[in-house]
Amino acid sequence: MMGRKLRMGMIGGGIGSFIGDVHRKASAIDGMIDLVCGAFSSNAEKSIASGKALYLSEERCYGSYEEMILKEKQLPEDVRMDFVAIVTPNHMHFPPAKMALEHGFHVVCDKPLTLTLEEAEALQKVVESSGKLLALTHNYTGNPMVKQARAMVANGDLGEIRKVQVQYLQGWLSTAVESTDNKQAAWRVDPKKSGIGGALGDIGTHAENLLEYITGLKIAELAADLGRFGKGRVLDDDGNLLLRMENGAKGTMSISQIALGEENNLAIKVYGEKGSFEWYQENPNELITRWIDQPKKVYTPNGNGLYQEALNVSRIPAGHPEGYLEAFATIYRNFALHIKAVNNGDIIKNPDYPTVEDGIRGMKFIYAAVESDKNNTIWVKV
Amino acid sequence: MMGRKLRMGMIGGGIGSFIGDVHRKASAIDGMIDLVCGAFSSNAEKSIASGKALYLSEERCYGSYEEMILKEKQLPEDVRMDFVAIVTPNHMHFPPAKMALEHGFHVVCDKPLTLTLEEAEALQKVVESSGKLLALTHNYTGNPMVKQARAMVANGDLGEIRKVQVQYLQGWLSTAVESTDNKQAAWRVDPKKSGIGGALGDIGTHAENLLEYITGLKIAELAADLGRFGKGRVLDDDGNLLLRMENGAKGTMSISQIALGEENNLAIKVYGEKGSFEWYQENPNELITRWIDQPKKVYTPNGNGLYQEALNVSRIPAGHPEGYLEAFATIYRNFALHIKAVNNGDIIKNPDYPTVEDGIRGMKFIYAAVESDKNNTIWVKV
Amino acid sequence: MMGRKLRMGMIGGGIGSFIGDVHRKASAIDGMIDLVCGAFSSNAEKSIASGKALYLSEERCYGSYEEMILKEKQLPEDVRMDFVAIVTPNHMHFPPAKMALEHGFHVVCDKPLTLTLEEAEALQKVVESSGKLLALTHNYTGNPMVKQARAMVANGDLGEIRKVQVQYLQGWLSTAVESTDNKQAAWRVDPKKSGIGGALGDIGTHAENLLEYITGLKIAELAADLGRFGKGRVLDDDGNLLLRMENGAKGTMSISQIALGEENNLAIKVYGEKGSFEWYQENPNELITRWIDQPKKVYTPNGNGLYQEALNVSRIPAGHPEGYLEAFATIYRNFALHIKAVNNGDIIKNPDYPTVEDGIRGMKFIYAAVESDKNNTIWVKV
Amino acid sequence: MMGRKLRMGMIGGGIGSFIGDVHRKASAIDGMIDLVCGAFSSNAEKSIASGKALYLSEERCYGSYEEMILKEKQLPEDVRMDFVAIVTPNHMHFPPAKMALEHGFHVVCDKPLTLTLEEAEALQKVVESSGKLLALTHNYTGNPMVKQARAMVANGDLGEIRKVQVQYLQGWLSTAVESTDNKQAAWRVDPKKSGIGGALGDIGTHAENLLEYITGLKIAELAADLGRFGKGRVLDDDGNLLLRMENGAKGTMSISQIALGEENNLAIKVYGEKGSFEWYQENPNELITRWIDQPKKVYTPNGNGLYQEALNVSRIPAGHPEGYLEAFATIYRNFALHIKAVNNGDIIKNPDYPTVEDGIRGMKFIYAAVESDKNNTIWVKV
Repeated sequence: MMGRKLRMGMIGGGIGSFIGDVHRKASAIDGMIDLVCGAFSSNAEKSIASGKALYLSEERCYGSYEEMILKEKQLPEDVRMDFVAIVTPNHMHFPPAKMALEHGFHVVCDKPLTLTLEEAEALQKVVESSGKLLALTHNYTGNPMVKQARAMVANGDLGEIRKVQVQYLQGWLSTAVESTDNKQAAWRVDPKKSGIGGALGDIGTHAENLLEYITGLKIAELAADLGRFGKGRVLDDDGNLLLRMENGAKGTMSISQIALGEENNLAIKVYGEKGSFEWYQENPNELITRWIDQPKKVYTPNGNGLYQEALNVSRIPAGHPEGYLEAFATIYRNFALHIKAVNNGDIIKNPDYPTVEDGIRGMKFIYAAVESDKNNTIWVKV
Repeated sequence: MMGRKLRMGMIGGGIGSFIGDVHRKASAIDGMIDLVCGAFSSNAEKSIASGKALYLSEERCYGSYEEMILKEKQLPEDVRMDFVAIVTPNHMHFPPAKMALEHGFHVVCDKPLTLTLEEAEALQKVVESSGKLLALTHNYTGNPMVKQARAMVANGDLGEIRKVQVQYLQGWLSTAVESTDNKQAAWRVDPKKSGIGGALGDIGTHAENLLEYITGLKIAELAADLGRFGKGRVLDDDGNLLLRMENGAKGTMSISQIALGEENNLAIKVYGEKGSFEWYQENPNELITRWIDQPKKVYTPNGNGLYQEALNVSRIPAGHPEGYLEAFATIYRNFALHIKAVNNGDIIKNPDYPTVEDGIRGMKFIYAAVESDKNNTIWVKV
Repeated sequence: MMGRKLRMGMIGGGIGSFIGDVHRKASAIDGMIDLVCGAFSSNAEKSIASGKALYLSEERCYGSYEEMILKEKQLPEDVRMDFVAIVTPNHMHFPPAKMALEHGFHVVCDKPLTLTLEEAEALQKVVESSGKLLALTHNYTGNPMVKQARAMVANGDLGEIRKVQVQYLQGWLSTAVESTDNKQAAWRVDPKKSGIGGALGDIGTHAENLLEYITGLKIAELAADLGRFGKGRVLDDDGNLLLRMENGAKGTMSISQIALGEENNLAIKVYGEKGSFEWYQENPNELITRWIDQPKKVYTPNGNGLYQEALNVSRIPAGHPEGYLEAFATIYRNFALHIKAVNNGDIIKNPDYPTVEDGIRGMKFIYAAVESDKNNTIWVKV
Repeated sequence: MMGRKLRMGMIGGGIGSFIGDVHRKASAIDGMIDLVCGAFSSNAEKSIASGKALYLSEERCYGSYEEMILKEKQLPEDVRMDFVAIVTPNHMHFPPAKMALEHGFHVVCDKPLTLTLEEAEALQKVVESSGKLLALTHNYTGNPMVKQARAMVANGDLGEIRKVQVQYLQGWLSTAVESTDNKQAAWRVDPKKSGIGGALGDIGTHAENLLEYITGLKIAELAADLGRFGKGRVLDDDGNLLLRMENGAKGTMSISQIALGEENNLAIKVYGEKGSFEWYQENPNELITRWIDQPKKVYTPNGNGLYQEALNVSRIPAGHPEGYLEAFATIYRNFALHIKAVNNGDIIKNPDYPTVEDGIRGMKFIYAAVESDKNNTIWVKV
């Protein structure tokens, strides 16, 4: 039997969308996935227009996710989509994810997982009962140097971790862009669409996920001081947090969407008893490491001295920079490989992409930070 | 009529190939091109195996490029490939390119254009007589910051150009890897497959192309001192060149594949009477500029202060790094847009991708450098 | 009347001392100060040996600071020292500073000002009653790019400040170096010699001072989580703090002497409503700035676009890096200029070097951080 | 007998001088040298005014170097200067150096050594016959990371050297500053004061010296293409050179004073068969190294993994940046230590500072480059 590409349907992501376009490009890079249908907009005309611009046939451009799920379900097995990618605002993650899973489709969902923690926990149950797979696009964990960092901690190269710093700084909400026609901004500052976290949900969960992924340690408790610097904003657009990790390490997290001039500055530093490292998303092809008795060493994708985990996800030789889309693509690739394995009856232990459990961690993080902030920065367990 | 994706056939690029895989990924990113067939190897079995791994049907995996071109020609117009991508060693560029063009297929060809200058000039005539399009993958010109650099020069921001430096440094041929089973190395050091230039053709032409693309100036003459440091190598694996540009600017070019430790360090500096800049391929998302009366300014893709030419080719917001594959993809995208325009009867003036003329410049560059080196570094016109 | 160099006496700083040597070199650079005497050790023999190695005559190498102050006082006015530099551990700052001031000598004192807040406040009174000058060597404020940063905030270039980050990270106490013969470490981990702060006093006060100096804003309150990672340590060797500035800006401070691999990483980021910047002590000749509608700009000492405050303290042309000693020297130079002005009966308004008031801020900072930490990270006013 | 500071006299370097001030500060840092007299200007009044500003007594501020040498010679041995520092334009190096040596004074001389090669060779004989010492201030070799680089090559860490790149780029002569009242520029573009080399002498000799110092290899021959971009300039203000080293390594040198925007960008890259490194004067506290089978390693002053040669010249702990003045000071320190040794009858083998031999290499370099350039870039032996 010949292998085949997986077929993807998309929910949200109409023309002009940022993250929908990212999901499409990222899913295309490795040649394992075809976009075959979409409910790109809740407006049927717009959905069709978006789909045609993507060279889809009109009959597979749907006016709602419900329609898409039901109609695709009725298509022949060798035609219908294998999974859906949900790229809508947060409040529209849970309903389509739940319905897709219940109708037998795997799901890729943008972060944060859901609008509320309750939804997240409900979704986890649906995932379990459906037997279908769910990938959450914490895309930064797809970077080769993030894999190297994680492997170095896991292999004990740094010794016991003592200190961590993670930050995710953007400046694009420095002014009241939500009052312009910036759709990205509008829903993000709206608690009905974003949930109880603003920057916390949008970028804080990435920081939280990256930290826990790399260190293999859970955040045990946190103390938060959130800011709402934009006039009239009810959700946080800035936050400073103290962290205590489950092993006794201490640290800080700083997130912001009003850090004027910052573009997309996600960065992490981890200090152990024997070594330390730092990684910057905006310059992702370097992992800077320091050691107790050796000079600073800088690792690069496909360069010297890497762990297999890092080599696995580099697509091109050393010195040929991979970026945001490639890391994103790695989430899709690992998810696709898992689906294929399931289809073949194979078992993959600890598949390497973020799942519904990561989504629940993210929601718990948001809830803990908001609770701490409301109570003048008391320590709250995560 | 519904738009459609363009259909690509590939010549070369079987399993394990570096550059074939790059072409496939790059052509997939923007969702405008489908790989539909291939002559991935001159061994039919290997070609089929490669094609199946790419989810192609067996009947479109051909045992030779001749077979592919002839058979595809006979397929219905709405099925057959639109263009071929040639990703073979240099000596196998001209024959399939010529045949494809003559049979009505557009061509994407890896650099350098051909084995000899004569072939290149012959190919130029075929392009003209066929009325078909040819893109040469000098991929680095697809970077947003390269576009910005070119636009800054074109708009006179730097004033008259006085000094240029370009280098392309790699270290992977520092040892005799051609004696191992490294296929990439084996053909590159073989004049029958590479032509009269070693590093000159493999990376020097990229440096030459980038320099002329960014400055809008031709290299008028050059003086070269080539090295053959690897034991037994007959082709250059290193070279230092003095440059004189057509406007009187002076400069240097340094290329090497024995610069131990360098990964893929293509870099350029341009100094004018009013400003200057530098760009590094390994950190492609920065353009560092200097000015007569202002502090250093650093531009980033989709960041502040860019020309439209740079904005046009950024796919994602500022701070989301694009890399090698994305720049490569831009060549494919612009080529695809040109084909579509031609198909629609539209005219695009100065389409922004490297063409057969760039290929001829590259061959002339190689020939001039070799001649200078043979004559103890005399100045030779390019 | 001919001008003359100022004459300096030193307390502490015997052979092998780190900071004593720094004070000597820094005070020598600008050719305004001569070292003329010293009580380099409480052991008279060692003091003499140290002084002779510095080419001092034996009769001006004293066995105690008391002896030095009393004997120098009796020397002719045109021979005796003008001021003392105190470079002893913290517990030995207050007694000699007080005595020197009371005997008519100006004082340079290493930071933190004193062992306790009470001493600091007492010393402030002595300064006032003596009419003599005291400089506290928060040396990092002497950097040209720190002056530029401060001037940019003061001139409103950044608009209202919203967010700050400051860190001072070292790794040299990662292991139990205090158990070896490392004198620097031994007294720093000893509360009798260091006071109630460990890293807080040693480096935290630098961070606090730099932040308040650059932003012109006081830390209104802080919440601290201190670490004592070295076995048996009673003083903090690590700390993470949340900050609220007097104008409503929020921020973080992270300090550590167990951040393995870090050398002397003092860094600050400041975000305003119109611009932001960052500065790194280990690469001090750059000030990286970001703007709402312009590309990133990087300022350099004596480079383009600087405020006069920055130009004033650059000794050499752009591109000739100045470092730690030069910044330190600027404190000495500005202090010497103030003494000369006083000697001439001139009045200098707001002389630009840290004074006893900065020392008191530093002590209050230490006390607030320790109190917050003891009370599970409650907010404490500074 | 008590040790004592060495006594320095200065020739040139009046108020407003750049390099005179550098020599004074550099010689002061280590506390081994006192400035005691000077012929700061050929105008006696100006000389006295300059000397008084430096707190010298009027009777030791001389109106000419001849006067200074003769009068100092008559002072008691424990009062008169030990050596002179010559900081005048190039044409005024030879006469005072010769006279000082012949009258028994050691000499520190700024680079290039003399106006002509003949003078340089004559001076070498004077040095030899006088038995006095001469130091040439190729100051960049005083950097700790340059020492480390040299030691790594000497110890064979890089294996046989194959490729070198050196550049020294400035932009301050981009416009006709010599037509303004810029004294630095005026004499540098005047062949009567500079000699036959413009940028070649001013910065090219630094590049040549650094390259030969670090690699331990002589430049065997060179081919040069010089530029005179400033209107009316007869001396080079830009140059590109091909290099062949005595061991067969090849390379490039690029120098410029019209590289607009460059401040003082002296940089070197060296590639061997086993490793390579690069060093940038503007960021002098890093040595970036690359290896055949290990990740990139970055060395820092007083950091991990250094050779003793590098440790010897670091004054302060790792992470406390040293800069231009400190490297300059190292030349003075090593020279002072040599004088002291000579005074004590000790022998120092290969004292580590540039000498008259380095000066002659520099002159030969200038002459070879000018000859090559005049003959359309032929290869010329150095």
